[in-house]
Amino acid sequence: MEILDVKANLIQDNDQEAACLRRSLEKSRTFLVNLMGSPGAGKTSVLTETIRLLKERYSIGVMEADVDSDVDARAMERLGVRTIQLHTGGSCHMDARMTGDGLAALNPEDLDIVFLENVGNLVCPAEFDVGQALRVMILSVPEGDDKPLKYPLMFSVSDCLLVNKTDTSEIFDFDLDRCTANVRRLNAEMPVFPVAAVDGRGIPEWTEWLADRVEDWKKKMEVADHGSDD
Amino acid sequence: MEILDVKANLIQDNDQEAACLRRSLEKSRTFLVNLMGSPGAGKTSVLTETIRLLKERYSIGVMEADVDSDVDARAMERLGVRTIQLHTGGSCHMDARMTGDGLAALNPEDLDIVFLENVGNLVCPAEFDVGQALRVMILSVPEGDDKPLKYPLMFSVSDCLLVNKTDTSEIFDFDLDRCTANVRRLNAEMPVFPVAAVDGRGIPEWTEWLADRVEDWKKKMEVADHGSDD
Repeated sequence: MEILDVKANLIQDNDQEAACLRRSLEKSRTFLVNLMGSPGAGKTSVLTETIRLLKERYSIGVMEADVDSDVDARAMERLGVRTIQLHTGGSCHMDARMTGDGLAALNPEDLDIVFLENVGNLVCPAEFDVGQALRVMILSVPEGDDKPLKYPLMFSVSDCLLVNKTDTSEIFDFDLDRCTANVRRLNAEMPVFPVAAVDGRGIPEWTEWLADRVEDWKKKMEVADHGSDD
Repeated sequence: MEILDVKANLIQDNDQEAACLRRSLEKSRTFLVNLMGSPGAGKTSVLTETIRLLKERYSIGVMEADVDSDVDARAMERLGVRTIQLHTGGSCHMDARMTGDGLAALNPEDLDIVFLENVGNLVCPAEFDVGQALRVMILSVPEGDDKPLKYPLMFSVSDCLLVNKTDTSEIFDFDLDRCTANVRRLNAEMPVFPVAAVDGRGIPEWTEWLADRVEDWKKKMEVADHGSDD
């Protein structure tokens, strides 16, 4: 497994870099998922269960972004998927340049789906387009149902919310309806999937939804290609 | 309760600003605690229990820093301590300038202790000296005992670690010894207090330790004042 030191994008052209990256991923039909959430929300364990259900159907790659360590990437390698560890050199988020560096090392041309597990952080990753086809965020029950009030941008920009560790809802007095109501004020259409990586509940529903998004996206790309042939 | 919009320090003089702030706080004998941790680690609830035990003995102020919302500041106001809500305008951390703005609005001259509850984030707040006398970090059991490996700077710069939600250790397979061993590699001398805000366990021990730090600091300030009189 490779460990790559990626450097932050200092110039103010992140959106342009992200657009380039998106076009390149569309060309190779590689669906990039930007997975975000707090430290310890369960990004790695939800991703593990997700990949278990999808890896027979799709070829999958993973980029694990961390300030330091490679514990998550080693967990992914055990699943038998192509994995790269990205070290962000102190940066609290991934940007498009860093993601491009990671993809260049991962060689995603033959991959259907690449998951980028972003740095554990509810603030800055929300501000940076990394060229993804889909932004998915994970909130965990122990963090509390008031988090949409405190970190509104993350909930606004994400395409899907997974509420993890729902097996502990009673211990933590977490009200899913209250959480969903807080989320809906920021993002009226966002699907919310209650899951628990520890016993797999909710993972099939979320995974099916994700597979539908991948298929819809592929069809859209085919149509766009035909359009550009005319 | 006042809500203040604070602006990030764009110039590269954070350390100088922090030193100024520290001198000013030393002059008024106000002990500033910079409290850091992930979203949902329990900073507000631990702080609530801490203040309950200290508020007869010390006059206390609180600055709640958030990207948005004022739910934490309202919780503090209910305790009857002087409180100000700081909105960071999207910034994922507090810096010295922002802290100075907050202190100017709080009028801390007659306060013994001011708690700054930093933005929920395990990365960037570790990089910014805010003029504090003490850096305290909270890690919660559901986040996992591997967090020192992934966010080493926060564990390196902190003066004390509170491990919160220890009532859930068995559910989450959190090993306090393993966590402490990971911490000790980064910060050999750091005291580690297992606590649970939900039932108050460990809070008296941590609070006594904090009160000792405040008293030691006051004595040191008196000696320094005498020295400068010579």
